[in-house]
Amino acid sequence: MKLVRYGAAGAEKPGMLDDGGVLRDLSAHVNDIAGDVLSDAGLDKLRAIDPASLPAVEGSPRMGACVGGIGKFMCIGLNFADHAEETGNPFPDHPVLFMKANSAVVGPNDDVSMPRGSTSTDWEVELGVVIGKAAKYVSKEDALDYVAGYCVINDVSERHFQNNLTGTWTKGKSCDTFGPTGPWLVTRDDIPDVQNLAMRLDVNGKRMQTGSTKTMIFTVAEIIEHLSGLMTLHPGDVISTGTPPGVGMGMKPTPVYLKRGDVMELEIEGLGTQRQTVTEDA
Amino acid sequence: MKLVRYGAAGAEKPGMLDDGGVLRDLSAHVNDIAGDVLSDAGLDKLRAIDPASLPAVEGSPRMGACVGGIGKFMCIGLNFADHAEETGNPFPDHPVLFMKANSAVVGPNDDVSMPRGSTSTDWEVELGVVIGKAAKYVSKEDALDYVAGYCVINDVSERHFQNNLTGTWTKGKSCDTFGPTGPWLVTRDDIPDVQNLAMRLDVNGKRMQTGSTKTMIFTVAEIIEHLSGLMTLHPGDVISTGTPPGVGMGMKPTPVYLKRGDVMELEIEGLGTQRQTVTEDA
Repeated sequence: MKLVRYGAAGAEKPGMLDDGGVLRDLSAHVNDIAGDVLSDAGLDKLRAIDPASLPAVEGSPRMGACVGGIGKFMCIGLNFADHAEETGNPFPDHPVLFMKANSAVVGPNDDVSMPRGSTSTDWEVELGVVIGKAAKYVSKEDALDYVAGYCVINDVSERHFQNNLTGTWTKGKSCDTFGPTGPWLVTRDDIPDVQNLAMRLDVNGKRMQTGSTKTMIFTVAEIIEHLSGLMTLHPGDVISTGTPPGVGMGMKPTPVYLKRGDVMELEIEGLGTQRQTVTEDA
Repeated sequence: MKLVRYGAAGAEKPGMLDDGGVLRDLSAHVNDIAGDVLSDAGLDKLRAIDPASLPAVEGSPRMGACVGGIGKFMCIGLNFADHAEETGNPFPDHPVLFMKANSAVVGPNDDVSMPRGSTSTDWEVELGVVIGKAAKYVSKEDALDYVAGYCVINDVSERHFQNNLTGTWTKGKSCDTFGPTGPWLVTRDDIPDVQNLAMRLDVNGKRMQTGSTKTMIFTVAEIIEHLSGLMTLHPGDVISTGTPPGVGMGMKPTPVYLKRGDVMELEIEGLGTQRQTVTEDA
């Protein structure tokens, strides 16, 4: 099942894609793709609806982030073996956690606006994991039962803010518009092997990142086990699980960063495509 | 004005204290102490109510966190000059930001439960700043206009998780129950000088932390200027502004950490008192 949120920012409606790719309005059935709707029971109710009975949405509305009411936006750093090898970093002993402010979340095709003082805004295609029910002290064997579904995330990062302004990476990760999320929340039953999905990111049509979730150092299940041992993961929490090689910071001989007017296009196998134009805060 | 949230966890009602300290029920006027209620206009509406016209609350209900729907829980580290001098750390060039998961928030007198595997759970009395209206690129001169009010926060910290599990401090700061917040949201008009408030924290009746907001390296206004230059601060976002000397990690000759049954008592001048008993996750 492919769930979406569409319409004006802050006033998104819930929807689903039917098998023909037609956007259907779910607002007669649920208020949002959020909270209890993400539970197994909540998703089963949506599965029981005949998509043909839902109104087809006219035109091409803006797509919002595919999940509403995101509580914690957790990110895992340095989680791809080929990226770690490329940079010469040792593999971490545990998943490397940092937080992105949930106020950074935007739709998958919204503009990404560089903040004042930005010198080094960079891209990161990542697999997003949306939690469906409360998870605490969950084993990796059971971990995927707590997942509602998966989506594409661009973990946009201002490297100067991230590394040179003192404090944790959060400063460079939390700027407004730095969390494009979606277009689809693909429920977990539609993703037979989340550890074997191709990933790619292009800037202005040039391939920058190519990877696969199969080179993750910590799998999605291992990440959930670790994080749920630290704190309760709640429905609507999101985990962005790290990026494969090819970010701008790692370009040789010198880093390459985004500039006004650049276009990023991202895709993860089975989870859809994002496209953002880069702008600047006035 | 002293605003509170009281009642069972997850079902708190809004209230206020009258001049005699009697708890009055505000639920006929607002649904929660959150969101738009925190704006100047929202607070003015509450100020216009005669407290004597509100029902007095019977008994001694549990106090919840004094603000609901907290979006971002931002924390500032290493922000007290006397603490920095004590530890030999240089003053940071900018406010040191890290995030605490908003799922860690509890009431001011709720138990603090040490997670499985905890070896080094510690205390930190801090001034909490509650944002009242959206703030982006705000100057320090205007910054306090964006504040709804202030409260006491215990930035409970598991030092092993914070420093040894790889990743940012978030791991040791975000455990469930690690964010006691309240008892009162004291509106900013009632705090003539937020940079001159006495702070203290006792463990089992012994004074551990003594300080004042006057030794902050970055003032509340400077912190808001810095953070609002990185991202929009929204109504209901909370900033915990750092702790004075006397945390357990800094005890000589060896650190002293919390154990089951310990009792923490915290106070900031004009903002009320917290009291937590330490328990352990099963």
